[in-house]
Amino acid sequence: MANGGPEIEQLIQLLARLPGLGPRSARRAVLHLIKRKEQLMLPLLAALDRAVAAVRTCENCGNIDTTSPCHICADPRRGDSGILIVVEDVADLWALERAGVGQVRYHVLGGVLSPLDGVGPDDLNLPKLIARARDYSEVVLAMNATVEGQTTAHYITDHLDPSETKITRLAHGVPVGGELDYLDEGTLSQALKARTTI
Amino acid sequence: MANGGPEIEQLIQLLARLPGLGPRSARRAVLHLIKRKEQLMLPLLAALDRAVAAVRTCENCGNIDTTSPCHICADPRRGDSGILIVVEDVADLWALERAGVGQVRYHVLGGVLSPLDGVGPDDLNLPKLIARARDYSEVVLAMNATVEGQTTAHYITDHLDPSETKITRLAHGVPVGGELDYLDEGTLSQALKARTTI
Repeated sequence: MANGGPEIEQLIQLLARLPGLGPRSARRAVLHLIKRKEQLMLPLLAALDRAVAAVRTCENCGNIDTTSPCHICADPRRGDSGILIVVEDVADLWALERAGVGQVRYHVLGGVLSPLDGVGPDDLNLPKLIARARDYSEVVLAMNATVEGQTTAHYITDHLDPSETKITRLAHGVPVGGELDYLDEGTLSQALKARTTI
Repeated sequence: MANGGPEIEQLIQLLARLPGLGPRSARRAVLHLIKRKEQLMLPLLAALDRAVAAVRTCENCGNIDTTSPCHICADPRRGDSGILIVVEDVADLWALERAGVGQVRYHVLGGVLSPLDGVGPDDLNLPKLIARARDYSEVVLAMNATVEGQTTAHYITDHLDPSETKITRLAHGVPVGGELDYLDEGTLSQALKARTTI
């Protein structure tokens, strides 16, 4: 039944739980690993071991790094801009960093408000955000453009003091490289409303 | 530059080398792992460690297992059928086992003849196949239906003695669930040539 013995079968089942891999591609991945034991399997084992030991969540912003506070919170130049970007997830923080948005700081909520899934304000990293916001001149709400993301943005806006901190959100509009024909009506009407002079 | 420190970056780069994962999905997978440290990351580390220690290649047939000879070669019932199926790769052996082809034995070539890539007969597990074939009444050539696979099948046919062993190949035809409209001409003409009485 189990090809290759229980050790291989278990490795396949664990890899299949990664996003982007199913049972079939996990099996291919395990064979790929076994055939490249020296070049890939042993280095992966070592890298996983080091990451398990080193990785921690930043106590300040919720970022994942090997130090806490993370390298972004520890960098004094990051504070000079006075900009704090609020994101749902560490993946969003990394995406903004790849986009090179400049010397800003972040706050990772660790999710969005979702009454249906039982996620309330206490389940998110919100009290610390309200405390941190005072130290910044602008808080950018960079939640996803989903119903839950926008609900969370509303909630945060209601709990921050606009006389202390300017609150902004990401622009809605046509994605760079996007074709109008393929865009939904909501995006198009937002893009037209927010049109800018050339 | 490197989000999350060098340990995380290196883990991403190694995972991105698995088939089916690119740099972007490897990053998602690593975040997924880190967030599920107890439920997924530590078990994966342990499973990888056990697999590295346990996995070996069967000296007899080339299968990957935790014993050598592998559990298929070690099973005496597998020899009774007298059928030896020759495959290119361990993945093909596992696919046939999943299909439940019965009490047969296998021989894994570890590749196909490919002069352009510098793969000659000496690079494959061929001498052992020729030695093993004598002990079986039928050798089924189950190479992929590619040019290299069929070239390899021809080479093997030329080097086996048909008076000692019957040599067969897999049937070509319409895949189960396949639609004629989407099939190539080669498959269709082979399926018509090999038509069977109902």
